[in-house]
Amino acid sequence: MTAVEYARKSQGRFLEELKGLLCIPSISTLPDHAPDVRHAATMLAKEMERISLENIRMIEGTGDPAGHPLVYGDWLRAPGKPTCLCYGHYDVQPPDPLDEWTTPPFEPSVRDGNLYARGAVDDKGQMYMHIKALESLFQANDGKLPLNIRVILEGEEEVGGENIARFVREHPDQLKADFALISDTEMFAPDLPTLCVGLRGMIYTEIEARGAKTDLHSGMYGGAAPNPFVALAQLIAKLKDENGHVTIPGFYDKVVAPSPDELRAWKTLPFDEQHYRETEVGSSELTGEPGFSVLERTWSRPTLDVHGMPGGFIGTGAKTVIPAKATAKVSMRLVPDMDPQESFAQYKAFVESLCPKGIQLSVRLIHSGDPLVINTDNPYVKAAERALHQVFGKETVFIRSGGSIPIVGDIERHLKIPSVMMGFGLPDDNLHAPNEKFHISNFYRGIESIILFFQEVGSQEVSSH
Amino acid sequence: MTAVEYARKSQGRFLEELKGLLCIPSISTLPDHAPDVRHAATMLAKEMERISLENIRMIEGTGDPAGHPLVYGDWLRAPGKPTCLCYGHYDVQPPDPLDEWTTPPFEPSVRDGNLYARGAVDDKGQMYMHIKALESLFQANDGKLPLNIRVILEGEEEVGGENIARFVREHPDQLKADFALISDTEMFAPDLPTLCVGLRGMIYTEIEARGAKTDLHSGMYGGAAPNPFVALAQLIAKLKDENGHVTIPGFYDKVVAPSPDELRAWKTLPFDEQHYRETEVGSSELTGEPGFSVLERTWSRPTLDVHGMPGGFIGTGAKTVIPAKATAKVSMRLVPDMDPQESFAQYKAFVESLCPKGIQLSVRLIHSGDPLVINTDNPYVKAAERALHQVFGKETVFIRSGGSIPIVGDIERHLKIPSVMMGFGLPDDNLHAPNEKFHISNFYRGIESIILFFQEVGSQEVSSH
Repeated sequence: MTAVEYARKSQGRFLEELKGLLCIPSISTLPDHAPDVRHAATMLAKEMERISLENIRMIEGTGDPAGHPLVYGDWLRAPGKPTCLCYGHYDVQPPDPLDEWTTPPFEPSVRDGNLYARGAVDDKGQMYMHIKALESLFQANDGKLPLNIRVILEGEEEVGGENIARFVREHPDQLKADFALISDTEMFAPDLPTLCVGLRGMIYTEIEARGAKTDLHSGMYGGAAPNPFVALAQLIAKLKDENGHVTIPGFYDKVVAPSPDELRAWKTLPFDEQHYRETEVGSSELTGEPGFSVLERTWSRPTLDVHGMPGGFIGTGAKTVIPAKATAKVSMRLVPDMDPQESFAQYKAFVESLCPKGIQLSVRLIHSGDPLVINTDNPYVKAAERALHQVFGKETVFIRSGGSIPIVGDIERHLKIPSVMMGFGLPDDNLHAPNEKFHISNFYRGIESIILFFQEVGSQEVSSH
Repeated sequence: MTAVEYARKSQGRFLEELKGLLCIPSISTLPDHAPDVRHAATMLAKEMERISLENIRMIEGTGDPAGHPLVYGDWLRAPGKPTCLCYGHYDVQPPDPLDEWTTPPFEPSVRDGNLYARGAVDDKGQMYMHIKALESLFQANDGKLPLNIRVILEGEEEVGGENIARFVREHPDQLKADFALISDTEMFAPDLPTLCVGLRGMIYTEIEARGAKTDLHSGMYGGAAPNPFVALAQLIAKLKDENGHVTIPGFYDKVVAPSPDELRAWKTLPFDEQHYRETEVGSSELTGEPGFSVLERTWSRPTLDVHGMPGGFIGTGAKTVIPAKATAKVSMRLVPDMDPQESFAQYKAFVESLCPKGIQLSVRLIHSGDPLVINTDNPYVKAAERALHQVFGKETVFIRSGGSIPIVGDIERHLKIPSVMMGFGLPDDNLHAPNEKFHISNFYRGIESIILFFQEVGSQEVSSH
């Protein structure tokens, strides 16, 4: 039996196993869920051991607080063959707003060929494709793999991935490989094999505005006391104009436009702006900078968004309070060659320069990640294209993603190897939103594609490096 | 024993009784607390019966939802004497942010001569002064009062008072009186007897902004999807300029400036702007319209404030979401002769005219109240001045309040009687804020002032009406 045949006959079991993993609410940003995050890590370590990976270990965080552990395993018994570093993350985004889920986020549910659960596609389901591809290869080849493998899984991707960044920086020898495989991106359209070759970076920040020393009655003090929400509104309105152009001085200075070839390729992608607006976004109009296509606006232009404004009274009904403080959660997506530290410094200085009367501001960086574009001229990308062609019968398209996967930049910088971002999500999979899902046939095709990709890579001898 | 003597010897008991009432979390705006609101109403009805008031009844709301009951009692056995309508409210504001309270909001605690609890001064403590003044008069006069009394207490003042407004409008005969006594205001300074003769009105609103049909990943969609928080920020920044001037067209058209006499009287009040800024507000600067004093800005100028912005992600850490919707709780304080309905219409039209691209807005009026100024040329105000002089040994000052007590406008319009707003709170009593308190000696002086006020009024024969 070939590895692909093994994977096909095991589909039902693979799906049930994934459901078991999806039941664990491993929400990395919520301290109350730390035991769940660890539970998911432990379950994965056991599974890696079961399928025959070796040297399994949990790598504890060294920050303060310690954070969530990395899970590592390898199989390095294919001398002369390339080594792949498989990366994935087992933590998930918070599920709120809960009342918008058709079925509960941590009770995986199958409907219309989709598996619904928080983490179904981002990234538990996609990370699990690697594990199941490796299991199939071990089973079909007497416990051997066609190439060398290191697997590293993290539990902090959704909160900035500090520990893995530190580990990659401080212990590049322990992750030594020829290339990395990352499945945390999406296909451009159903049935269209896709490799992602660019990511936006990000800085996630909080602006805290403080006015009065305590909450005040808006009748007694309205007209004399500073209002931190009004102050934040005035500030935010000055960070981005009504065309979606960020007004922070110097913000665009290092933005590099995509090459004419890349822009031309994007124009050939099957993109219908009206369909995108109606079915994916569902708003009356799209927004953003005039003169740039939607793909440019989301892939190769930086942006600024506000995610929430904690503080004050948010219950039902009326409370007539001038709150002592209010906060805005503001993030910016960055593109090559912007530098997160420099962009944050520009932003912080600009925000502070706009400080309204009577208000004191704290501008905090919560986390950041580098933007990047990957050079596709390497044998691993070619092998991926061949594998995808066998499964989908189509040529691979190269896209960028508007999202951020900071580890890809760390891998490039510290391990000096290329990443293959082979993802099988769909644009309507509701990442970070209620009713996240994974199209089940993409879960199966992903496993087969990865099996074939490893076989393709394994048929090559390693180039000197 | 005189009524004042009775009140003095009963001080300890009066305070303990008040603490019992303050233990009840009768938060009218939170549906979960409806049973607590009713508990407070029942306790007050029993107390009114105990002290000898008659015709006690609970008047249930007729809205949908029904709301919280009114509690009514009277004593009308002083023929030829004036009739006083005593108004107070037994509901309170929500106590959040809870972690800023030194002692829990519903566990009354005495420190440094102050009683700390939610509702201590607004308005349970002040309302209770009426009850205890009446008890003292009954006890000292063989179960008789020197004047006729109707008491009406409501449980919805903090949420707009719809039911009492309807009751006053529809059943003015059941509240027939010569004047009203309301103790829900404050003294201008410690030891300075004060009558309040003007109130701001208000409109409390919500602006809901909807963009995408569901929450979206800010990486994938940032740059193309509308962000409702950014939209609300842009909107709010256009409602009020950086000098605190509201920019809604027509907003100031009906604003009537105080008379030169009133402005002159305000200038003689013991007001120290630096002290006010440092000890009451505690901000680095005061805000508001240039060219107007702090008292004008808070008493006789309209304002606009934002109280909270529900929606999106407000937890600790980072969630990279473009929320499908966000809401801003926005209120405006109004001054004579602004009309709440007209101001809301101007506001709504202006907000809708500013609707950012890709956003749909709903602008809702939550509740409203009329602004008013009271004519002080009547025997009840004169009687109040004499009573206050006996207790404080000082001339009474006339102030306005920036707050809103909609019932005062309803009493003026439908019962056509003057209100005496005799309050004993202090400017630093933390109304609507953590660590609300009532200075205990003001509770006692309030009871004595009201006893003497009723005796003064009772020495008059009723004027024909």
